[in-house]
Amino acid sequence: MSEVAELPLIGAAALRARSAARVLRTLPTDTKDAALAAMAEALVERTEEVLAANAADVDAAAEAGTPASVLDRLRLDAGRVAGVADALRQLVALPDPVGDVVRGNRLPNGLELKQVRVPLGVVGIVYEARPNVTVDAAGLCLKSGNAALLRGSASAYRTNTALIAVLTDAGEKAGLPAGFVELLPAERASVGELLNARGYVDVVIPRGGASLIQRVVREARVPVIETGEGNCHVYVDASADPAIAEAVVLNSKTHRVSVCNSAETLLVHRDVPFLPRLLAALAGAGVTLHGDDAARAAHDTVVPATDEDWATEYLSMDMAVRIVDDLPQALEHIARWSTGHTEAIVADSAAAISEFTAGVDAAAILVNASTRFTDGGEFGFGAEIGISTQKLHARGPLGLPELTSTTYVVTGRGHTR
Amino acid sequence: MSEVAELPLIGAAALRARSAARVLRTLPTDTKDAALAAMAEALVERTEEVLAANAADVDAAAEAGTPASVLDRLRLDAGRVAGVADALRQLVALPDPVGDVVRGNRLPNGLELKQVRVPLGVVGIVYEARPNVTVDAAGLCLKSGNAALLRGSASAYRTNTALIAVLTDAGEKAGLPAGFVELLPAERASVGELLNARGYVDVVIPRGGASLIQRVVREARVPVIETGEGNCHVYVDASADPAIAEAVVLNSKTHRVSVCNSAETLLVHRDVPFLPRLLAALAGAGVTLHGDDAARAAHDTVVPATDEDWATEYLSMDMAVRIVDDLPQALEHIARWSTGHTEAIVADSAAAISEFTAGVDAAAILVNASTRFTDGGEFGFGAEIGISTQKLHARGPLGLPELTSTTYVVTGRGHTR
Repeated sequence: MSEVAELPLIGAAALRARSAARVLRTLPTDTKDAALAAMAEALVERTEEVLAANAADVDAAAEAGTPASVLDRLRLDAGRVAGVADALRQLVALPDPVGDVVRGNRLPNGLELKQVRVPLGVVGIVYEARPNVTVDAAGLCLKSGNAALLRGSASAYRTNTALIAVLTDAGEKAGLPAGFVELLPAERASVGELLNARGYVDVVIPRGGASLIQRVVREARVPVIETGEGNCHVYVDASADPAIAEAVVLNSKTHRVSVCNSAETLLVHRDVPFLPRLLAALAGAGVTLHGDDAARAAHDTVVPATDEDWATEYLSMDMAVRIVDDLPQALEHIARWSTGHTEAIVADSAAAISEFTAGVDAAAILVNASTRFTDGGEFGFGAEIGISTQKLHARGPLGLPELTSTTYVVTGRGHTR
Repeated sequence: MSEVAELPLIGAAALRARSAARVLRTLPTDTKDAALAAMAEALVERTEEVLAANAADVDAAAEAGTPASVLDRLRLDAGRVAGVADALRQLVALPDPVGDVVRGNRLPNGLELKQVRVPLGVVGIVYEARPNVTVDAAGLCLKSGNAALLRGSASAYRTNTALIAVLTDAGEKAGLPAGFVELLPAERASVGELLNARGYVDVVIPRGGASLIQRVVREARVPVIETGEGNCHVYVDASADPAIAEAVVLNSKTHRVSVCNSAETLLVHRDVPFLPRLLAALAGAGVTLHGDDAARAAHDTVVPATDEDWATEYLSMDMAVRIVDDLPQALEHIARWSTGHTEAIVADSAAAISEFTAGVDAAAILVNASTRFTDGGEFGFGAEIGISTQKLHARGPLGLPELTSTTYVVTGRGHTR
């Protein structure tokens, strides 16, 4: 375990959270749900206070020359505050994973074996200038019985402080222990402390771009769940239906370009007869295509692609295009360049679909459907704290059960070996 | 991803394993089972070759002054080789986790959602001078569709080389891809390379003592599953049945002292009337007791305990003893000193049992049963690669399902958002 002395920025908050976690793990669902409802109500009641803090953040960010798209994510209004309050209320309706018996049976010697879901304990979350994440993360952690250590962006610090004050007041009045949610200082060094707080933090979930993920991989001595990067491919097989291919490819690329489940590379079997029409549709929708020679031969606006294009998560109206000889070549390409987030196939051949789903190693594989469906809400999980691109613990959308661990409870009557 | 150039010792083996993993993930159960059976048969047939290599290892270790207990774990004979071959055959009988549908449903929009178990990919295992682990690990990884990178002790290198030659020959003849199992060089630096082989290795499982675990925590840039350290407690409540208490405490401490699920500290409620008899029974069984003042007052052979005793995983015929005022004080002690492996309570009060199981944060909680039951074989999992003391991914005995990840396969008919 680290010493508190080594954590000057976050040590006190981490100790409060650790102490709160011991209480939270034993709270009945009713108490947690009542607190969530009270927190939602308090957010609506104290909207003005939150908006005043947010205005100060937005003004400071605007003065610092922050791009409009980032300002937009930072900015709250009464409607957005009502929206995050609603998200808390929706958590009330979701089942509490804590106490679920994952498996259980009586062993031959009479011992009763149960594997039971328990909270992880203290969950650290590092994220960007999106104040809604502050409330979502606090709510998800609470419902799953965890204490939350939130490290938001410095540019949202006033907003987050106001939000956490509201959540803390309402939560503690509703019976939650002090420290059930803690906002960490926005100094850069507080991330480093969080990543090294062994014994205080049970998991850290970074929500952010590639540079944050890389820092976490390099520095973390606590367990982490990687989320984020999605270099997603859509493979169009020779057997694909033309209308389905066009709909899925366009939706995957253009529905919302800035998110991790949008498509970045299109792989097309060389026998697909409608390639020119497909590329024309993408170009017509405003997509800049970066292709290999065969793609450039099929449509005249395609610019040349390099390995850099295969590797890039554009998050923009750009798409790489490669024509492949066959499905195995598509699988090779995906194995080399994929970040393991979401891969899609459009095909009518059951054999091709089966080969693709067996051969692709990713959190989600979409068959004749848009990559945009990889999402906790779309999957029916009700809420998500991110989309895991790692293989251990949880892969894909992280819902409430993914914020838990398990304990084996084994009951005997004096059993010995 | 690391560059191969950065992995001079293990790069070539890691590449072979990574390539094998792509084939292994698609192999039907029949092929894997036939290979396991063939490997078992080959081990028995080529026992002499294995024993000759083992004799060279044992001689070298004996000359180097290796303790007898370590030599014993290193030494093979025909019976032990037959035993590891049998363990492979037992894997044939276990269900293959790959392809299991963990959950599945049709979403309101008609999309079919399935969460399916898939292999992790390449599993690295670092372990000590126990040649049986070489065969067990290779078999568990194969059955779960993973390629195995094995880093055994230098003192067992000749034995491991002979074992892997047998497994490789038999496995490849039975249709497994080259690289399905690879023995890594025994140089110290190969562990460091393995812990940094991002992109090549999907998880590393260290099986060893505290120093190995600490090194892994410090150095690993790949995902790890921590196994091992067990500072396990038995709490005897005021409501405990005397006979059950004596049986459980003695079995937990003395059945096999060198293993992670043996008990190290005894916590006794101050109202337990049979404390002197319990301590006398332990002392009579040859256990050296290290106790607080109240324990020392109850039995005259108890030597004084310090904080060091509460922290120590003795792995010997020693036991720390503390008399607590009540169950919450026992929970406080456990929260402070436990390694989260196994904690036991002996009690007849349902309220006490419930408070204990809710309040303890550990991989396994034993109620009126010996700590020694925390074991994959005892739990009916058939085989284990270790006992995880971490909260993410897998906690407790690691069986075949714990060597898998999952993929969401989502099937539509041109679905878009």
